[in-house]
Parts: sequence; structure tokens; C-alpha cells
Amino acid sequence: MPERHFADALLEACRRKRSQVVVGLDPRLDRLPAELREGDAAPGPAERILAFNRNVIDAVAESAAAVKCQIAFYEQLGCAGMAAYAETIRHAKNCDLIVIADAKRGDIASTASAYAAAHLGGHDGGVDDFVADALTVNPYLGSDGVRPFVNAAVTTGRGLFVLVKTSNPSSTELQDLDCGGRPLYEHVASLVSAWGAPHKGEGGYSPVGAVVGATFPEELARLRALMPHTPLLVPGFGAQGGGVQDVLPAFDERGEGAVVNSSRGIIFAWHRAPYAERFGEKGWRDAVRAAAADMRDQLWQGTH
Amino acid sequence: MPERHFADALLEACRRKRSQVVVGLDPRLDRLPAELREGDAAPGPAERILAFNRNVIDAVAESAAAVKCQIAFYEQLGCAGMAAYAETIRHAKNCDLIVIADAKRGDIASTASAYAAAHLGGHDGGVDDFVADALTVNPYLGSDGVRPFVNAAVTTGRGLFVLVKTSNPSSTELQDLDCGGRPLYEHVASLVSAWGAPHKGEGGYSPVGAVVGATFPEELARLRALMPHTPLLVPGFGAQGGGVQDVLPAFDERGEGAVVNSSRGIIFAWHRAPYAERFGEKGWRDAVRAAAADMRDQLWQGTH
Repeated sequence: MPERHFADALLEACRRKRSQVVVGLDPRLDRLPAELREGDAAPGPAERILAFNRNVIDAVAESAAAVKCQIAFYEQLGCAGMAAYAETIRHAKNCDLIVIADAKRGDIASTASAYAAAHLGGHDGGVDDFVADALTVNPYLGSDGVRPFVNAAVTTGRGLFVLVKTSNPSSTELQDLDCGGRPLYEHVASLVSAWGAPHKGEGGYSPVGAVVGATFPEELARLRALMPHTPLLVPGFGAQGGGVQDVLPAFDERGEGAVVNSSRGIIFAWHRAPYAERFGEKGWRDAVRAAAADMRDQLWQGTH
Repeated sequence: MPERHFADALLEACRRKRSQVVVGLDPRLDRLPAELREGDAAPGPAERILAFNRNVIDAVAESAAAVKCQIAFYEQLGCAGMAAYAETIRHAKNCDLIVIADAKRGDIASTASAYAAAHLGGHDGGVDDFVADALTVNPYLGSDGVRPFVNAAVTTGRGLFVLVKTSNPSSTELQDLDCGGRPLYEHVASLVSAWGAPHKGEGGYSPVGAVVGATFPEELARLRALMPHTPLLVPGFGAQGGGVQDVLPAFDERGEGAVVNSSRGIIFAWHRAPYAERFGEKGWRDAVRAAAADMRDQLWQGTH
């Protein structure tokens, strides 16, 4: 068994930094600051995004517990984008940040093993370019599609966040379907809880976490209760509409057991109030730094 | 609107080649022929796999309508693996094969757009390294997670195959849950049919296809009837246990409207009877060629 345990490492980082903040690195070329959008410092789109990410990571390293890399934004830039993705992961790890790969992978058994090797490592002679500390996983294929990820997480000391209830409006369409008196997402929650149960760490949480959107606070409270040993990754804060009050139900009575993601609200903070006025575009690094610190303080004060 | 239409292009390829065969390019290093596993011709694992794929593509180009690239097997080899993936797509297109990216992507709206740009193209100034002719998509997030893919497919003339009923044993766990008298997968089938309905091509099929496993023949018949205008991609043939009789219900009365995937059964044909005896490892290219041609003939004779 590995020395590290993902859930314990996440708890430790949150306590030490007094932060439950995850910063989503979802870079969009057209929103970069002018100096990176137009300057000569970086030759191509992938290099511009990597330069941006490095600055963002440096600015949030103190106040965020983790970063979440949305791999779609890198895949769309082809091979150069994937190299920027690999380098972004490396820089974030070097800056004492836990890295969550938001790739929402899911497939049948042998293929799931290949995805697990790609993003969680643990294969002899494997390539670790894309290996993060945790991976988001789609449960639609059922247990034999998820177990290879669970096995890899347990073997490597890394973690998962399985999609249970996502933050988008249409998540109601399938996830809320009534399946024998319970919505589908509760069936998924039961599976997630069971997959992780045998693997709890010293802090009482398992390495098999769940994604539960901030945009459905009532469901969040119910899911917290249904999965008492499951770390929650809560997206939908900020730009998608969720506020501090909306995410409080995700936390346990000690104010632990959940981390909250904000992407655009942090990494493009200088585009919005009050950071636009305070810092302007030239002060974009300071705007990012301040937005992450403010989110950290709001969440910490709300939960402690 | 683009001149091409994915469903029409797929129908045309099947008619011209008298083939409903999709060859799954799921390369595993430990199953490569000795000359590629140990030889000096290719320096690293990704290069060995690319050399293998080129040979397989050349061997099946005449008898397969399409290839399906399971991206997980490339992701696990990091940046070099993704370069091999891009080059595999390019070579297959050059050999008159339709390329299906089996990536099972799915995410919320803006992120789904980024995935669509990555795998279906259509963005101004976009990078086309990973652009295929069609993409597999996971429906768990609902309509607003799938519509960006549909929009991209319609705009570019490319296609989708949305997971409806997968071929793995645990697919029953969530996909078969009773949701108001119908299994979950039938709800998904209704959505898939509706997403594609406004976009039918001249042959009567939409560019929004569905993945339905060969391992559940009864469900296959029912889903064919529920989605009369939806092209079906049927995995699970061969190594996973499905035979010709099992996949017949996927086809319409003209023997059209479906393609059937085999991966290991074709690309590693020299490991199994009768090809092991006939060709041996040194004849691996001919074994691959014969296995693809035999599958083509079996399917065509079963449906025509």
C-alpha cells in the first residue's frame, strides 16, 4: 500500500492553508490579459495558455488547496495543448497544490484501466505526463467501468471524484429521473459510497469522492448525509450562480469533507467587480491573487 | 451548411465497400508482434504503436468501413501517445477510412464546446490534430451537455455516437434502472432520437448516432425500433462475446443503419484460431487482413 492517501492529503492541505478553495484552470484564449493575448512572449496558443497558467498558479498557490485542470480546454489545442496540460500539472505540483484532472473519463473495464493509468499512474513503465492527484469519473457504465479507477486510486494513493449531481441546468433530465422512489443520482451516490467504504483514510474519508454541484443546495445537503465518508468536489460556485450559503451543506460538522471550485471567477477576476476597479487589466495577477484569497476567507469564515 | 453529412457518408462507405465493419484500434504494447515489440524500427512505445496502427490500417482499408480509435490507449502514453493518436487518425483518413474517435466525452455546456472543437473541429483558427469524423459522447449530464456536440456535428458535417446501452456486464446497474416503467437507457434513446431528428440526411439517418452493445441482443432490437433514424455503433462483437446473430437486430430492413466494431478480434487476429494456425506471428499483417475480410463477409451475408 502507498504511504499517501488522497483524502488525508486533501484534508491536510485544507487545514494547513485554512482553505477549501479549488481554482479551475479553464483558460480561454480570448479572455487572457492583453500582454499574453497579443505579446510576443509566447509563440502559439498553447504556449500563451501555459504562460497564463503559470502566473495564475503562482498567484493562488498560497490560498488555494487545489487546482482543477479542465482537460477539454487543452485537448482543443491538439498536441501542443496536451503538452501545456502536462506542464501545467507539473508546475502546480511544484507549487504545493493538489491537482485534480477534470476529465470526466469513463469506459468499460480494460479501457478504464488505460484511462486510470493515464491520469492516476501506477503502471510499471508508464508515462506520467498527465498523472494528477485525482481524476473526475463518469459513472454511466456502472461498477465494472469505475472499479479500475478505484483500484488505481487505492494502489497509487490518489483519488477520484465521481459525477453524482452536476451543476448544469439539464442535469435534472437524467440524473433526477425517479428510479423506484429515488432519483438516479441517489443510486449513483450509494454506489460511490460503497466503492470507497473499504478504503477510508485516517481522517475518515475515502479516496472515492463525488462531484455535486453548488447550484442544487437541497440535493447537496441530502447527498452529504447519504455519503458521510465521501469527499465532495463542488463546482458551480461564482460564475455559475452558487454562493457561500449554497455550498455550506457540503461540509461536515467540522467544516471539512468538501472543496469548492471556482474557475472564471478567479482566473479572470480582473474582468469583474470589485477586482476590475481595484486592479485593472495591468494588475491581473493581483486581481487573481485577491479573488482566490477572498474566496478562501469567505468559505473558511462560513464553515469555522 | 457543410456539403457532407456524416450519416450519408457512412452509408455510402458501407455500400461501396459492402462492409459494416469498424476496426477498433485499441493497441496494447504487450500484444504487438515481436518485430514491433522488440525491434529497433521504432524507438518508444508510442512510435511502436503508431507503426503497428499503420500496418493494421493498410491491412483493413479495403474491407472496413471505419476505424474506431480508443483514445485511452493513447492518453496513457502521454504527449507522445497523443501525437501517435493524431498521426493514426491522419493515416486512416488518407486510406479512405471513416474515423470514429472513441473518447466518450461529456461535460457541461462551455466545456462540451471545447471537447467538440477538439474532436469534431469547426472552430475558427482551431487545431485539428485530434479531429475525427465522429465522436462517442456520454449522456449523463443531459441535453445542455450534449447539444454543443450536436451543434458541432451539424456545422461540420461530422457525427456523434451517444452511449445508450453499453456492452459491459455492469451496464445493467444504472442503464437498466426502472425509471417510471422504462429503463434509463430508453429515456436516453428518446433524447438521442430527438437530438438528431431535425438533421436527417438524404439516406434518412441523422448524424446523432447511438452506441448499443452487441452483448444485449433483445435490447438491441427494441432500441433499433425506438430510434429508427439513428445510426447504431455496435461494440461487443468477437472478443466480448457477440456473434453475427446477436448484431442482426441492429440493422434496418435494407441491412443498413448500423456498423459493428471488433477490436482485439481483428487487430490481434494472429493470436487466435483460425488465424494463428493459418498465418502465425510472422504473417500477422495477413491475419489482420483476413480477419477483417471474414467479418465483413459474415456481416454482409447475414444482412443481405
